[in-house]
Amino acid sequence: MATFLRTASRSRPFLSSPIARSASRLSPIAVRKQHAAAAAVSDNGEQPFFPDEPTGPIVKTAIPGPKSQKAIERLSKVFDTRSLNMMTDYQKSYGNYIADPDGNVLLDVYAQIASIPVGYNNPTLLLAATSPEMASAIINRPALGNFPQHDWADILETGILAAAPKGLDQVFTGTTGSDANELAYKAAFMWKRQQERGGYHVDFTEHEINSSMVNQSPGAPELSILSFSSGFHGRLFGSLSTTRSKPIHKLDIPAFDWPRAPFPSCKYPLDEYAAENAAEEQRCLDETERLIKEWHNPPAAVVVEPIQSEGGDNHASPNFFRGLRELTKKHNILFIVDEVQTGLGATGKLWAHEHWGLSSPPDMVTFSKKAQAAGYYYSNTELRPNKPYRQFNTWMGDPARALLFRAIIKEVERLNLVENTAATGDYLYDGLRSLAQKYPNEIKNLRGKGQGTFIAWDSPRRDEVLKKGKTVGINIGGSGEAAVRLRPMLIFQKHHANILLEKLEAIFKS
Amino acid sequence: MATFLRTASRSRPFLSSPIARSASRLSPIAVRKQHAAAAAVSDNGEQPFFPDEPTGPIVKTAIPGPKSQKAIERLSKVFDTRSLNMMTDYQKSYGNYIADPDGNVLLDVYAQIASIPVGYNNPTLLLAATSPEMASAIINRPALGNFPQHDWADILETGILAAAPKGLDQVFTGTTGSDANELAYKAAFMWKRQQERGGYHVDFTEHEINSSMVNQSPGAPELSILSFSSGFHGRLFGSLSTTRSKPIHKLDIPAFDWPRAPFPSCKYPLDEYAAENAAEEQRCLDETERLIKEWHNPPAAVVVEPIQSEGGDNHASPNFFRGLRELTKKHNILFIVDEVQTGLGATGKLWAHEHWGLSSPPDMVTFSKKAQAAGYYYSNTELRPNKPYRQFNTWMGDPARALLFRAIIKEVERLNLVENTAATGDYLYDGLRSLAQKYPNEIKNLRGKGQGTFIAWDSPRRDEVLKKGKTVGINIGGSGEAAVRLRPMLIFQKHHANILLEKLEAIFKS
Repeated sequence: MATFLRTASRSRPFLSSPIARSASRLSPIAVRKQHAAAAAVSDNGEQPFFPDEPTGPIVKTAIPGPKSQKAIERLSKVFDTRSLNMMTDYQKSYGNYIADPDGNVLLDVYAQIASIPVGYNNPTLLLAATSPEMASAIINRPALGNFPQHDWADILETGILAAAPKGLDQVFTGTTGSDANELAYKAAFMWKRQQERGGYHVDFTEHEINSSMVNQSPGAPELSILSFSSGFHGRLFGSLSTTRSKPIHKLDIPAFDWPRAPFPSCKYPLDEYAAENAAEEQRCLDETERLIKEWHNPPAAVVVEPIQSEGGDNHASPNFFRGLRELTKKHNILFIVDEVQTGLGATGKLWAHEHWGLSSPPDMVTFSKKAQAAGYYYSNTELRPNKPYRQFNTWMGDPARALLFRAIIKEVERLNLVENTAATGDYLYDGLRSLAQKYPNEIKNLRGKGQGTFIAWDSPRRDEVLKKGKTVGINIGGSGEAAVRLRPMLIFQKHHANILLEKLEAIFKS
Repeated sequence: MATFLRTASRSRPFLSSPIARSASRLSPIAVRKQHAAAAAVSDNGEQPFFPDEPTGPIVKTAIPGPKSQKAIERLSKVFDTRSLNMMTDYQKSYGNYIADPDGNVLLDVYAQIASIPVGYNNPTLLLAATSPEMASAIINRPALGNFPQHDWADILETGILAAAPKGLDQVFTGTTGSDANELAYKAAFMWKRQQERGGYHVDFTEHEINSSMVNQSPGAPELSILSFSSGFHGRLFGSLSTTRSKPIHKLDIPAFDWPRAPFPSCKYPLDEYAAENAAEEQRCLDETERLIKEWHNPPAAVVVEPIQSEGGDNHASPNFFRGLRELTKKHNILFIVDEVQTGLGATGKLWAHEHWGLSSPPDMVTFSKKAQAAGYYYSNTELRPNKPYRQFNTWMGDPARALLFRAIIKEVERLNLVENTAATGDYLYDGLRSLAQKYPNEIKNLRGKGQGTFIAWDSPRRDEVLKKGKTVGINIGGSGEAAVRLRPMLIFQKHHANILLEKLEAIFKS
């Protein structure tokens, strides 16, 4: 344990560091200088990406402390704060560290529910955020479907599409993960109905037109999206109908009568239970096929997360996902991979579905969170509906977020952050496995081997562990009923893993 | 006609103006200076808000011109461009004028589908967009429900809530108009079911919990939202189920079996047909009440636009809306006013429902578009669901857009833009009425009297008029089947109205 439980020893408070100061002043020239300095030392193994990051957490008060409590009390009067986790001071947060108004600074392995990609106040992103084109994007937000900016193709090609999964070369942009999934579902329904109608150029019937206006079939078709038990795809009405994570997400909201297939209940580590898991996966594939064939509202598409995240960090083998790809082809429906949480490098690949070795790419891949932008990738031009204004809304995405995504993907490339996450993830997984051997009642079903830092385990006292995390200086999240899920940023390195492991052991000892 | 058809005579190209240059360079100091200069002359009647705006449209090429065509061709390879209206150069757009890559500059009375509030490259917004807090909001996007920034209450109180409709003092933030409406619907469903359950503190039953996970009632209740024929509330699955504008918006997308009440088919001007309109409105109120009482999936709420916008600019009298407020109270369901397009000053009131003189405020008012932010206002704390995480998602809005909204509302106050829009709207309406007398086959059913610049009319050759607009230098939109809708920004002044009226007459003469 000694090698990775080495305590970080530097204690210079990061708030006096040049980068932190320039970040809080936001002088582009000062940031540019610091940025150059940071780049010069970060290309070499365990050299830190953020040299002026805090060397460890600082816990000064109970959380929430007095200043946070005051801010929460004020906010509660106008905004629902009952799900509040920690009042945050973003100006004082930096790199992997999240700060609060009371001077507490925690190592953040939750990262805004897995949505901060390259560190708080990342200097490269700060340059993008203070650029003239960003200012224009903020104050001149276009209706992209009607009035795209003249350089929109360039922004897409050098940004969102530069990160496109292999085989997918087009994008429809949206605003959030939930929105991205619903847009993909709409594309799937329009595609399916157009097929049923006899092809791309066959027009709607009067009956379809009239019935659509009163929400009745055939115009509003009785088709469905098949999703999996414990899956999470968002909380709008369509996406929530495919979400099967927790009752609290779904109760009292009307839902479509869409089918739910079982997601495999695998044993971990996956490779040690290969035979049992393969049988379980086959059972789930068989049931999926039965539902595709028999459900009274036939599916137009199957949607699945590469790793079920909100639903408890549930994994399956590449073979299961290859099976889904084959089933959807066999039955002429679409295969939508929801990479909202898994995408952009966290699993040690840019896209988690790269782990699967598919024979042909998914029909659509949805993204958001770490991308900061959102939307779905596709390639089949028949997934563009056969008439304009069928897939349309006022903003259709946000160039400001597309510019940010471009800066993010450049930072990911510049610092080799996908490789970093793969290597750090392996190191962290080994450390956790050692901890699991030492504290078998604290870490059960450790999972995420070979999946970058996308690691989780079950804890019999999960909520207590998360709460105690704050007292020892780590901000950590849960998923499902009992899982502790690690969702650090892509700049999480081995020295951060050492701190995390040390703090976890302190919790387990308590 | 002579008075308002005076041709603008200055011809100095605005792109060489100091503000335009500073805007394209985005030097905050230069902008600050210009901003001060602009403020000094804009407080006085018909003094222009943007002194360096172009004095009139410049049409150099057919639209799209050669450069635009090239950009469209390139964009089409990766992005669906079939609904493209005009390739736009936002850096060169300014105030009320929209520019394209070919040097064409049009007077814009469509304003990104009614979503640009205070002018392209507005210097005040530019200052907000280049502020340190905006940069932080862009690069450190929080999960607001879990980790709100410490000054979130302040940002809300000085921004979104400073513009809150009378009687509503809380907000739930979202990302788009569609999202805002769905969030409001979810709040309504949770409220209604909690009432049916016996009150705020009564817990869910096992049956509810289990059935919710398979999308069946009672957990996923068979409740509805009642909306009106020709209404538009967005294009996500729940909001689209309440949208009744056009088949192309709805075809092939599964929808909930929710009721559609008739929206009054009024005659214009409303006051000249008061008796007939009152009878029509009563018919629609009666049918609404019948549906509330008898629809097999009972409504939890009624949603209505103050002026139906996408659906053809359909107006009704304040009496109709007061009737809806009373009906919803009588039947203990909620009254949601969708001010996504009407809100933020365009009707000559900050919120269009202020025109109605309601005895008690709506239960929820949704906003987006000109607000740039989105969400719903409410006041009844029982509309906060009874447990945390019921109304929740990753981002829950966007502080960057909340900061922009704050700058917008300050600009609206500083320049008295609601008053401006009321006065300019009256002037424009009078001019259009004169044109309608002169060209009775071109302008039919002129409407929007006393509703600021929220004016529309029916045209027997609508699409041709819109297209010809570009050739004479105006960018103008349609709604419904035959309406020309004016949706200028709040900085649209009488001298802009003069240009618009002159150009319209040129079209009518052609």
